Amino acid sequence: MEKITIKAHPNIALVKYWGKKDEQLKIPFNNSISLTLDNIYTLTSVEIIENSEDKIIFSNRDITQKEKNRVINFLDIFRKITNKNNLKFSIITENNFPTASGLASSASGFCALGIALNELLKLKLDKKEISKLIRLGSGSACRSVYGGFVEWEKGVFTDGSDSYSIQIADENYWDVRMLITIIDDKEKIKSSTNAMKETVLTSPFYQSWLNTIEKDLNEVRSGILEKDFEKVGKTIEHNCLKMHSTMFTSFPSTIFWQPETISIIKTVSLMRDDGLHCYFTIDAGANVKILCLPNEIQKIKLYLNQLSGIKNIIECKIGKSPEVLL
Amino acid sequence: MEKITIKAHPNIALVKYWGKKDEQLKIPFNNSISLTLDNIYTLTSVEIIENSEDKIIFSNRDITQKEKNRVINFLDIFRKITNKNNLKFSIITENNFPTASGLASSASGFCALGIALNELLKLKLDKKEISKLIRLGSGSACRSVYGGFVEWEKGVFTDGSDSYSIQIADENYWDVRMLITIIDDKEKIKSSTNAMKETVLTSPFYQSWLNTIEKDLNEVRSGILEKDFEKVGKTIEHNCLKMHSTMFTSFPSTIFWQPETISIIKTVSLMRDDGLHCYFTIDAGANVKILCLPNEIQKIKLYLNQLSGIKNIIECKIGKSPEVLL
Repeated sequence: MEKITIKAHPNIALVKYWGKKDEQLKIPFNNSISLTLDNIYTLTSVEIIENSEDKIIFSNRDITQKEKNRVINFLDIFRKITNKNNLKFSIITENNFPTASGLASSASGFCALGIALNELLKLKLDKKEISKLIRLGSGSACRSVYGGFVEWEKGVFTDGSDSYSIQIADENYWDVRMLITIIDDKEKIKSSTNAMKETVLTSPFYQSWLNTIEKDLNEVRSGILEKDFEKVGKTIEHNCLKMHSTMFTSFPSTIFWQPETISIIKTVSLMRDDGLHCYFTIDAGANVKILCLPNEIQKIKLYLNQLSGIKNIIECKIGKSPEVLL
Repeated sequence: MEKITIKAHPNIALVKYWGKKDEQLKIPFNNSISLTLDNIYTLTSVEIIENSEDKIIFSNRDITQKEKNRVINFLDIFRKITNKNNLKFSIITENNFPTASGLASSASGFCALGIALNELLKLKLDKKEISKLIRLGSGSACRSVYGGFVEWEKGVFTDGSDSYSIQIADENYWDVRMLITIIDDKEKIKSSTNAMKETVLTSPFYQSWLNTIEKDLNEVRSGILEKDFEKVGKTIEHNCLKMHSTMFTSFPSTIFWQPETISIIKTVSLMRDDGLHCYFTIDAGANVKILCLPNEIQKIKLYLNQLSGIKNIIECKIGKSPEVLL
C-alpha cells in the first residue's frame, strides 16, 4: 500500500483570527495574516488500511477521544468527496514542539493531514481548494498551505466557498525572524475554540475589535510588501493586545497570560528603548513570540536570558510550504 | 494663627472612573462607585501664613514642581471663592502608605486639603459643595468626602455643578474587607491623568467601555444594598478587566500590570475554586486589591503568602468620613 508523509509548519498570526461566523464551516469573522515558521513542524504519515476503523496515533503522547473524533470528522470529508465511505486510514503524526500551548499544533497537524490525503487519494486539488478543506479541520490550519506571509480571506459566501488562504509573499521575500519563548508547555487552561466562542458571545468589545481589523490588515500587508519592520511591528502588538483584551473582558474572562508573559512584554519594550528592533505577539496561550531582525537575535537573547521562567527559546526563520517526504 | 488638621482616607473604585469629558473641570465620562478604606490615610495640616508664597511640604518625601503647581492651582480656587487673592497657606501633608503606586494618594490628599480649607476659611460648605471643589483638585478625591460606599455622579451640566459624590451606604452597613497587596511601591510608569487621556483619544474600545458602565453601576449599587457579595464581586472584576483592556489597547499601550499582578489574579481565581469568597480589582498601577469577607482573611493570607514578590499586605475595613483632628 502507498504511504504518504507530509511535513507541514505551524504559522503564527500577525493579525489575529478570533471568532467564527460559522462554527461548523469554520468561517471567520475577519481576515488574518500569518507567517509560516521553519524548523518547527508536524510530520504526518497516512495510508489506506483494511480495517473496520481508522487508526490514529500521536507519536509523542496519547490521543484524547475528543481529538480522535475531530480527526475522524475530517477524514469523513475526504471519504465523502471520493464517495468511498468504507475507506479507512492509518495516521501517524508527530510534532517536534509542545502540543496545545498556543503554538498552533492543530494548524500544522490538519494542514499536513489534508495535504497527505490529497496526495494519497490523488485528488489533484489546487492550493485554494485544499486550503478550504483544511479549514474545516482547523480554521487557522488553512494558512499553513503556503510558506512565507499568508492571508486567510474570510470570504463573503455563507457556504465558505471563498474562505481560503492566499500568499502575500514567499519565504525568500523578507528575512525576518521569530523567537518563540516557551514559558509554559503545559496544556492550556481553555481551548481556543471555547475561548473564542465565549468572547464572541460575551465580550462587550468584540464588535469594536472587528471594526479595527481592516486597518490592521492594510498596515501589515503593505508593511510586509514594503519591508517596513516598524509598521508591521507596531500593528501586530496593538492587534495582539486587542485580541487578548476581548478575552479578558469576556464573561467568564479568559486570561491566558502568565507572570512571565508580562515580564517578556516589558522586556520587549525595554529592548526597543535600547535601540533594538523587536515586537511581540501572543496567541491563545502564555508564550510570547518576538518578531525581530536576523542580525539582532544574539543581543535579544542576552536580554531574555536574564529573565526567570523561560524554559526554552525556539528561533525560527520564515518557513516554506508543506513538503512531501519521500 | 489657627491650624486645622484633617485625616482623610483613600477610596478604591469598585466601578472605575476612567476618562474625563472635561479635562479642566474634571468631569468624568461615567459615574463610579468606591469604598473608603480605614487605616490608610493622609494627614494634612493647613494654616494661613504671612508670606509671599505658599509653603507646601510632603513629610515623607520631596515634592516635585508639578505637584506643587497642582496644589497651588487648588489653593487658587479657595482664594478666588473668598476674594482673598493675597492669602498664603502653609500645608504639611503626610501619607501612611506609598505615594503614586495606584493607591490613590491624590484622592485622600486633595480630600483632606479641601476639607481643611473649608474649616480654616469657615466656608461652611456642605458635603455636596465641598465634593465639587475637591473634584477640581483630583477627580476621584471627591469620593473620599464620605465613608462607606460612595457614588460619584458624573452629572449632566457642562459647568460640573452637578458632578459630585453621594453616599450609598455608610461604613457600618456591611462589613466587607479589602486586602491591598503591595507588589510595587515604585512610582508608576505613567500618571493616571496621562494614561486616561491617551485611552480616551486612542483606544478603539473606549466607547464600548462607556456603554457597559450603567449596567455595572446598577449591579454594584444594588449588590451593596442587598449585601450580595457575589453580585458585587463578579461585577467589579469584570469592570476592572474592562478598564485595563481599554489601556492595553490604547496607542501607545499602557500596561500597569507586573508579573505579580497576574500571579495574584490567578490566585484569587484559585481561592474561589477552593470555596473562598474573594474578588480582585486593580487601579492605575500594579497592586491588586482583594475584596473579601472578614472571617476568611486569614485563609486568604495563607494563599497569598505562598506567592513571591508581595512586599506587604495592607488589611482594611471600610473607612469613615474625613475627621478634624484636634
